[in-house]
Amino acid sequence: MPSSDLIALRDIVRQFAEERDWQQFHTPKNLAMALSVEVAELVEHFQWLKTGEQEELDDVRRTGVRHELADSLVYLIRLADRLDVDLYDAVIEKMQLNREKYPADKVRGQSRKYDQY
Amino acid sequence: MPSSDLIALRDIVRQFAEERDWQQFHTPKNLAMALSVEVAELVEHFQWLKTGEQEELDDVRRTGVRHELADSLVYLIRLADRLDVDLYDAVIEKMQLNREKYPADKVRGQSRKYDQY
Amino acid sequence: MPSSDLIALRDIVRQFAEERDWQQFHTPKNLAMALSVEVAELVEHFQWLKTGEQEELDDVRRTGVRHELADSLVYLIRLADRLDVDLYDAVIEKMQLNREKYPADKVRGQSRKYDQY
Amino acid sequence: MPSSDLIALRDIVRQFAEERDWQQFHTPKNLAMALSVEVAELVEHFQWLKTGEQEELDDVRRTGVRHELADSLVYLIRLADRLDVDLYDAVIEKMQLNREKYPADKVRGQSRKYDQY
Repeated sequence: MPSSDLIALRDIVRQFAEERDWQQFHTPKNLAMALSVEVAELVEHFQWLKTGEQEELDDVRRTGVRHELADSLVYLIRLADRLDVDLYDAVIEKMQLNREKYPADKVRGQSRKYDQY
Repeated sequence: MPSSDLIALRDIVRQFAEERDWQQFHTPKNLAMALSVEVAELVEHFQWLKTGEQEELDDVRRTGVRHELADSLVYLIRLADRLDVDLYDAVIEKMQLNREKYPADKVRGQSRKYDQY
Repeated sequence: MPSSDLIALRDIVRQFAEERDWQQFHTPKNLAMALSVEVAELVEHFQWLKTGEQEELDDVRRTGVRHELADSLVYLIRLADRLDVDLYDAVIEKMQLNREKYPADKVRGQSRKYDQY
Repeated sequence: MPSSDLIALRDIVRQFAEERDWQQFHTPKNLAMALSVEVAELVEHFQWLKTGEQEELDDVRRTGVRHELADSLVYLIRLADRLDVDLYDAVIEKMQLNREKYPADKVRGQSRKYDQY
């Protein structure tokens, strides 16, 4: 059985917010906005690259990407925490739905949206 | 055997993509875009609400939010996988930087950006 | 008949890109990403505010917002230009569809999505 | 009488909101979020394409892109209206700053950010 990294991180992020008395700012709405801003900072690294594969990233950019991935996960975990969503369970559940929406036999090698098959 | 839930989820998501031969679409650049689209679907649930606290969410919306949180985490995990980033380590490392940028004594109860103190 | 600001701006932005030989980077895909990044920089100004009304914005933030609004419009105009979309016509056409989707009598004072009435 | 197409569109969008009594929802913060959601719907069209050039877009997608461009501009205009920003002036002003940040001689054919030269 996997141990829970996600719960460990949730507790770290929660403590960080509480020590700064930031709960007042951390409404779900504000956290969703903050998450979208962090993800855009991630997107910014890739916007003029061809594919963003590792060989296109120099060390500075690789570190930047790593930090933005982390910040994005921090806000995602914090938002889930504020809404009492267990992220592990939510992904397991959603992946089952995704398997039904995108049966491997039907969609193999194609990128259309599920309602376009 | 996966030693953590983030790694367990990474393996589930990786298998899902491989079974569909979607690695060809999953460049870091495309995955960053897809992540931003999922996060926007999350934001959409909150855009006309006051705070997005649980009491403002009916069951339909709560389920929608749960699914979008899951889809966002799926793409975040997939992007990190493609870039060989260990998300747990990256968050631990970044939270240490965040503690230095935002010392609790200095920022308590305030929401300015670190370069505005 | 309105004179065309939008076409004047399109020409300014087009010239700016050509003088820098940036057409090679300005694929529709890259421009859509760049637009989303600029819009996130706009969102960032509002993420911890209550409503973002003018009285909540100091002069520094007001200038920042103004610049991000401009950068967002620049990329939107550039993207439309690359796709041969006349933005004025497109908005006139879409507003007619919006009037049909959201009849004033039916939706007055409510913020639900059109498929939730 | 409107003297420009941006002002003509602003008035159309303003009337649309007033007829529906949607001013109450149209805080700058909410409009910035709504804009980011529309832009993500635009991004979604391009996320699995190579470049998004016209030849990659079928008619359905071309119409979708046109509508999302329009919706994005609608929210951008509405947000600027709520903040008393004249978009035409703001772009003229910002393009002058962009010319200073990115002198054509220095940046020709390169896509780095201005602080990386």
